[in-house]
Amino acid sequence: MKVLQIGLGPIGMAISRLLMRKPGWEIVAAVDTDVVKQGRDLGDVIGLESPVGLDICSEIPPLDPDDVDLAFLTTVSTFTEVLPTLHTLARGGIHVIASTEELFYPHHRYPQQTQELDTIAKQHGASILGTGINPGFVMDTLALLLTGVCQDVARIAVTRVVNAAGRRPSLQKQIGVGMSPEAFAQAVEQQRVGLVGPTDSLAFLADVLKWKMDGFKERLVPVLTHKPLQAAHGQIESGQVCGVRHLIKGISNGKEVISFDLRVYLGAEQTRDTIYIEGTPTLESTLKSPDLEDVAAAGLLVNMGPLVYQARPGLLTMIDLPLPHYQR
Amino acid sequence: MKVLQIGLGPIGMAISRLLMRKPGWEIVAAVDTDVVKQGRDLGDVIGLESPVGLDICSEIPPLDPDDVDLAFLTTVSTFTEVLPTLHTLARGGIHVIASTEELFYPHHRYPQQTQELDTIAKQHGASILGTGINPGFVMDTLALLLTGVCQDVARIAVTRVVNAAGRRPSLQKQIGVGMSPEAFAQAVEQQRVGLVGPTDSLAFLADVLKWKMDGFKERLVPVLTHKPLQAAHGQIESGQVCGVRHLIKGISNGKEVISFDLRVYLGAEQTRDTIYIEGTPTLESTLKSPDLEDVAAAGLLVNMGPLVYQARPGLLTMIDLPLPHYQR
Repeated sequence: MKVLQIGLGPIGMAISRLLMRKPGWEIVAAVDTDVVKQGRDLGDVIGLESPVGLDICSEIPPLDPDDVDLAFLTTVSTFTEVLPTLHTLARGGIHVIASTEELFYPHHRYPQQTQELDTIAKQHGASILGTGINPGFVMDTLALLLTGVCQDVARIAVTRVVNAAGRRPSLQKQIGVGMSPEAFAQAVEQQRVGLVGPTDSLAFLADVLKWKMDGFKERLVPVLTHKPLQAAHGQIESGQVCGVRHLIKGISNGKEVISFDLRVYLGAEQTRDTIYIEGTPTLESTLKSPDLEDVAAAGLLVNMGPLVYQARPGLLTMIDLPLPHYQR
Repeated sequence: MKVLQIGLGPIGMAISRLLMRKPGWEIVAAVDTDVVKQGRDLGDVIGLESPVGLDICSEIPPLDPDDVDLAFLTTVSTFTEVLPTLHTLARGGIHVIASTEELFYPHHRYPQQTQELDTIAKQHGASILGTGINPGFVMDTLALLLTGVCQDVARIAVTRVVNAAGRRPSLQKQIGVGMSPEAFAQAVEQQRVGLVGPTDSLAFLADVLKWKMDGFKERLVPVLTHKPLQAAHGQIESGQVCGVRHLIKGISNGKEVISFDLRVYLGAEQTRDTIYIEGTPTLESTLKSPDLEDVAAAGLLVNMGPLVYQARPGLLTMIDLPLPHYQR
């Protein structure tokens, strides 16, 4: 599989490291907007012992569709920001798997642009998928698979507990680490804090399960530390924000049918993903892992590669593809 | 969806009850080999309050392919026993979803007959799937989905604990309930006890993950009760067998890469399915449900209906189809 790697942040680097040692895969070009990385050898940037003979480009090089099977797009979270790149790739007939959170299920938030992208992809024979751990796996795909054994589903509740210690600075900023409670409240009003994706997971679940939603309620509660903690940007003090509890409720016919409770903060214990499905039968699933983050995201994107490559053209979701599984 | 229901045991009856109340589904014919059920109204046999105007047939009636979209085959566990029926349905161009344990992944045990069935199904445009809770979901499909986030998988271990109390007599017989330890040992030698399917789940996992297996080791250990217990066929005494611990190990390159530990006995506590995946990342998933048995099996078979209906023809497995999920 010949790969174009766009974006060499933590997930893009993890993908590149994986592909370098995975038989049958080859990176034909790597792109990053960071001038510090441009022109350097990919092996050097991703921490390999020897260069791989591939310099990082500043923009997507002109590629013959025969030269590339698949692009991994691991840059930013916002749909509109990656849209020009997606249009370029789709018009070139290049399949794309993106970690862009808002591409997981953009139908809800950007209906018109989503349809346009789907049309362009179909016209040029390109298959496009947005996926990742969250959104993309733990709060949506895994929950949906579990509903597969249900005769009825009345309610889905997911609790995700993540320890943000040691995570990348951009994530820690997103969850308000180091803010005062007052600054956090202001940031909530200005929509500068909170996790990207859970409302998309919720919209995806509702659409697949054909629940007509009245709407959803979102609430961001700061988690305050009671002792000094080490954050990515330095130490934070007792009483400051060390993360967030992001609560989302989906209401259908006046009843709460989907509840997400995301707790992402420094020092979180009992990290897990618990999915509770009230139905016939009722199910409770708990998933634990020491690293269900960037390593797993890279694994998932690469494992989806052969499935997307063989899929029908268009903008796809996780239920348009065969069951995800490890690809040797 | 117009359904032909073949077999009105516990799963077939659960499917019929579900379809009778599920919008968009209609049972056009129901078949059972039990003379006591034949000629009676389906509604009466499945415990509905009023008849549904459909008499149970002794054999599959002649059906125009336009009259039926899908057959649910819920009769026996053995591939060779259902093969004539599958040939008949396939030649009639009728899609089939079967609870037949050995149809979940017959490629390993019956390679030639499997290929013949696949060829016939393809020739006549019929899609065929064998699935269920186990094999079909907890020890294979769910485990595979979890490997979807892995960069590497070194080992998979699944522990399934099921309380056999209140389960159907045929299952209790299969796990040796009421036998003396000596009779159990003899029954093991004669292959008259043990669960159907785990070796097929193991072969499926190994094939999908492309693990070349040296072979597998199977061991059946009786679980003895220390107090009198109520079984389907009457009371069993202290010292008698109340169920089984069925252990299977899959060996690849001299290493144990798949371990199944099934504990199915009367009075089993902490019932659960635990999937441990040693890999990058390592994952542990625990699934709990008060009824992950016939109710869930019926749910799964029905939910797979629209996916099989739209699938390519041939004998399919759970990775040939889109992600299973609840279908409203």
